[in-house]
Amino acid sequence: MSLLAVGTVAFDDIETPFGRAEMVVGGAATYITLAASYFTKDLKIVSVIGDDFPEEELDYLRSRGVNLEGLQVRKGERSFFWSGRYHNNLNDRDTLDTQLNVLGDFDPVLPESYRNVDYLMLGNLTPAIQKKVIQQLNRRPKLIALDTMNFWMNTAMESLLEVLKMIDVLVINDEEARQLSGEHSLVKAADAIHHMGPKYLVIKKGEHGALLFEGGNIFFAPALPLAEVFDPTGAGDTFAGGFIGYLAKTEDLSFENMKRAVIYGSAMASFCVEKFSIERLKGLSNKEIKERIAAFVELVNFDADLEF
Amino acid sequence: MSLLAVGTVAFDDIETPFGRAEMVVGGAATYITLAASYFTKDLKIVSVIGDDFPEEELDYLRSRGVNLEGLQVRKGERSFFWSGRYHNNLNDRDTLDTQLNVLGDFDPVLPESYRNVDYLMLGNLTPAIQKKVIQQLNRRPKLIALDTMNFWMNTAMESLLEVLKMIDVLVINDEEARQLSGEHSLVKAADAIHHMGPKYLVIKKGEHGALLFEGGNIFFAPALPLAEVFDPTGAGDTFAGGFIGYLAKTEDLSFENMKRAVIYGSAMASFCVEKFSIERLKGLSNKEIKERIAAFVELVNFDADLEF
Repeated sequence: MSLLAVGTVAFDDIETPFGRAEMVVGGAATYITLAASYFTKDLKIVSVIGDDFPEEELDYLRSRGVNLEGLQVRKGERSFFWSGRYHNNLNDRDTLDTQLNVLGDFDPVLPESYRNVDYLMLGNLTPAIQKKVIQQLNRRPKLIALDTMNFWMNTAMESLLEVLKMIDVLVINDEEARQLSGEHSLVKAADAIHHMGPKYLVIKKGEHGALLFEGGNIFFAPALPLAEVFDPTGAGDTFAGGFIGYLAKTEDLSFENMKRAVIYGSAMASFCVEKFSIERLKGLSNKEIKERIAAFVELVNFDADLEF
Repeated sequence: MSLLAVGTVAFDDIETPFGRAEMVVGGAATYITLAASYFTKDLKIVSVIGDDFPEEELDYLRSRGVNLEGLQVRKGERSFFWSGRYHNNLNDRDTLDTQLNVLGDFDPVLPESYRNVDYLMLGNLTPAIQKKVIQQLNRRPKLIALDTMNFWMNTAMESLLEVLKMIDVLVINDEEARQLSGEHSLVKAADAIHHMGPKYLVIKKGEHGALLFEGGNIFFAPALPLAEVFDPTGAGDTFAGGFIGYLAKTEDLSFENMKRAVIYGSAMASFCVEKFSIERLKGLSNKEIKERIAAFVELVNFDADLEF
């Protein structure tokens, strides 16, 4: 099944306690499609870059099955750039620099060949742009998932609430879920967010795992305890890419299969953080992914002994 | 199998966003033995109280199978008292008052009938007192578990490191594990702590669940997402009581059974937080506990589909 990812394709400067990487490839749409490419090959990107983006990186995306017809390339302009420094705990980070560049007046245009896409992942962008993408579709996709952040809740809440009515799955972190709903309890937050539109809610909790909510159903996916988290950049987008990529492959939107999709997303994210940028997501083998999934099974597996 | 709990038996004043409770029953040994009493009946307490402690509360503990021969009652003195106020997130709290009272010069004395105990849970107390209890035993118990806190790491580290060499299971929270080991990664922290003595390490993460480490084995137990956390006081001790109570009942120290013990501890803690003080731990039915365990199974259960 075809999958469209909308989001940034960008450069990052990253500083972690383990080292420093300059002008490395990043961006939500990059991480989403790369992670998804291990599950499905009919991938499309809507995004914008400058003419500073290396052709070999675009070739690499193409080699992973990503159609770049919807990627606008602006001559003489520069790609979106983000620079950040992670604290020792790797959970907190300071943004050192954000240069919107081509993203400043980004107007997404869906090529005709994209307008009947089956699965849509809207990466974190202005809610108005996310809405504009949905409005260009010829028919409603089988599933629309969306990522957003506190910044849009603070500055474009009305617009965000509008787009939330149009989607199926909201993928956010715990603090964002609390801010959006005004509820501290994630159970209550999920209930409030369901009422805003999304039937499914995935709450990412970083090193503490992820929760999947659908109506009264709750699933708790662990995060793999890692000895080294080298660079957390892109982990959330990689999670989203693995999640929706697995759904696009299996075409099964039951709660049972959504649970598996959360585990596959978590597994892909656990690779992402092992190296800078997209390095670890390049050239993963099917065997490595299966071994990682088996590690998740092992991690939470127990016999309950209800005869105690 | 017999189980001895060493720790406070005390009064608490508690303020949460949901209300206020004054001079209610608390204390680590109280929560530990009550939680354990749902699994095993040969329970003993070593602690100290003043003559202000209500006889009916002691009778209730006796009715749950708790032997109080090792509970010193000091005439004319007052029991340990703690007062705290929880923030809206219920994770953070301010201590408003701590009155050591009888605990100030507590010298634990094990009655002869306690000295061959099979399972020992050392609640959070001065490491020197924890050590003194171990030294009074006639033989080494099958399992010694210990709880401690940052305060002892700051003020009595040498003494803490001594007692850590004498125990099997350390039960602490994530921040304590990081401080004790000097490692941010919990995987590395576990490795460092294993080298200090404890073969098993349980890291409690509150609403994020718990991790069990033994050598290279890791188990991740979820916490039940709750709509209402009414009062978190005693949740950690209740966890410890359910954990060691289940082990004392089953007498199986395999990693598989330790995993189950972590789940049973988490289930007991999930009851504890539903009401003030020990209220919810009174009169639980076997059926309620089994239903709660079944909810934990449901929460993390998934089919991996390794044929993707």
